Amino acid sequence: MSRNGEAVTAAHFPVVWPVSTRWSDNDMFGHLNNAVYYQLFDSAINGWLARDAGVDPMTMPAIGVVAESGCRFLAEARFPDPLAVGIAVTRLGRSSVTYELGLLRAASSGADDHATGQVVALGHWVHVYVDRDSGKPTPVPDHIRRLLTTATRSGS
Amino acid sequence: MSRNGEAVTAAHFPVVWPVSTRWSDNDMFGHLNNAVYYQLFDSAINGWLARDAGVDPMTMPAIGVVAESGCRFLAEARFPDPLAVGIAVTRLGRSSVTYELGLLRAASSGADDHATGQVVALGHWVHVYVDRDSGKPTPVPDHIRRLLTTATRSGS
Amino acid sequence: MSRNGEAVTAAHFPVVWPVSTRWSDNDMFGHLNNAVYYQLFDSAINGWLARDAGVDPMTMPAIGVVAESGCRFLAEARFPDPLAVGIAVTRLGRSSVTYELGLLRAASSGADDHATGQVVALGHWVHVYVDRDSGKPTPVPDHIRRLLTTATRSGS
Amino acid sequence: MSRNGEAVTAAHFPVVWPVSTRWSDNDMFGHLNNAVYYQLFDSAINGWLARDAGVDPMTMPAIGVVAESGCRFLAEARFPDPLAVGIAVTRLGRSSVTYELGLLRAASSGADDHATGQVVALGHWVHVYVDRDSGKPTPVPDHIRRLLTTATRSGS
Repeated sequence: MSRNGEAVTAAHFPVVWPVSTRWSDNDMFGHLNNAVYYQLFDSAINGWLARDAGVDPMTMPAIGVVAESGCRFLAEARFPDPLAVGIAVTRLGRSSVTYELGLLRAASSGADDHATGQVVALGHWVHVYVDRDSGKPTPVPDHIRRLLTTATRSGS
Repeated sequence: MSRNGEAVTAAHFPVVWPVSTRWSDNDMFGHLNNAVYYQLFDSAINGWLARDAGVDPMTMPAIGVVAESGCRFLAEARFPDPLAVGIAVTRLGRSSVTYELGLLRAASSGADDHATGQVVALGHWVHVYVDRDSGKPTPVPDHIRRLLTTATRSGS
Repeated sequence: MSRNGEAVTAAHFPVVWPVSTRWSDNDMFGHLNNAVYYQLFDSAINGWLARDAGVDPMTMPAIGVVAESGCRFLAEARFPDPLAVGIAVTRLGRSSVTYELGLLRAASSGADDHATGQVVALGHWVHVYVDRDSGKPTPVPDHIRRLLTTATRSGS
Repeated sequence: MSRNGEAVTAAHFPVVWPVSTRWSDNDMFGHLNNAVYYQLFDSAINGWLARDAGVDPMTMPAIGVVAESGCRFLAEARFPDPLAVGIAVTRLGRSSVTYELGLLRAASSGADDHATGQVVALGHWVHVYVDRDSGKPTPVPDHIRRLLTTATRSGS
């Protein structure tokens, strides 16, 4: 796997968020269904925003809605593998943010080893912030922007 | 929404496959969670292959695994809306097939009206056929290839 | 399968609601994952309440939360089978309602034939209505109660 | 919550298995969809069997299929709460096993504190072992039975 001719590794991601798999994630072929990867990306982004920026999706006036997503599937993963999602912010605009995401196989059971795990999928994700009531684009809230700037990296 | 400067409509899709929504599909914002779109695309492609090419995923020697997927989300959809997926084959290689997919809002309750529905999301999808045991790429099986050629359209 | 010594059939259910299956519903054994049955029950109940009582879960002041559910799995079902959920109200209290639910295999592709399909699972479900803001039990809203009384049957 | 007049706590469960929540688990009311509880129970049971009895669901000749399940929902849980599932074996027959399950809120971030968490739901689950090919009931495999006996408790 390369991005601009360079192998992508766990080290490319400023944030690494542990996620877990479920019995029902495995499909008839015995590996994670592809839609599950998007659930894991979503959970990592929103879990990070909740914990580190205090985002409450039920009450915040500006909500992040997904405008675009995509994923390349590079290797198999399956329940009950422990996994992690690497998060990098590759573009931060007035009302939108683009993430690059890696689904990482944990190298071992130790939490610190997530950073050395194999990249099994590589995704991207665009959130557009809109006003909860009107649905119109609105600036990325300041407390979210501050967190996002801690995870920036120039994009692919 | 445009593709090559031309608006994409339901009429662009040679196959239109009805799908339905679930209570649990709606997220905290009251609309379909983004991963659900991929579940619906997957169900439409595989439902069509099962019905019209007799594909049985538990026994067939060559299985289609997802190598890449992506989606642009254009308008909201929500449970209990009836929806449909438009399917077009935009590239058919030796062992891979690329689909363009549209999530369509049914114009009314009549099945025939799916073809006039609004495109709420536009996706793409790459299946690579691999040998069930070895995992190595293998040619698209003939009976599947014959069905795919009935839904071809030059890609975007 | 018997209930009080009598076989349960599709004819026991005053309401029959079509549901569909998804590729990702099938687990490693090639049949519907058990949690999917609960998604289908939930979708049938709430789809019926939305269509016939105009319930909007995002704005209504009294919301139905699940207090208890259960299911006996009697026969296999799998994607891409078309299925239907039979709904009967077996107890209607001041703030709670108990449903009996049957997952039905469609006898053929005709919608009218749902009523003759095999019962593949038999479930029960208790909704308690609570005030959206306080979370305290509140009477079942009148327009919902009126609909529920059209589907009553003495319970098992 | 009581069982035989006695409050059920995390201490009633011989096995406590950490599980995590996902963005898409929360429904329109901002709490975990009820079907998710069953996904978590399933993942805990099967994760434990995989790790401690070496069960491989894709190849083992005897597979455990769900004959019955049920759940009482006692308190709200929501993403991104870390949770755990308490597991007890309450009946172990020739070809079937009955589990009592508790969904536990972690008391704090420490893994050891799972044992002190609040019980937010209480479930039961019956697995029947069947021959993979014939579908006929078959004895619980010895290596699974040995593990199950380490988690027995007389049932409710």
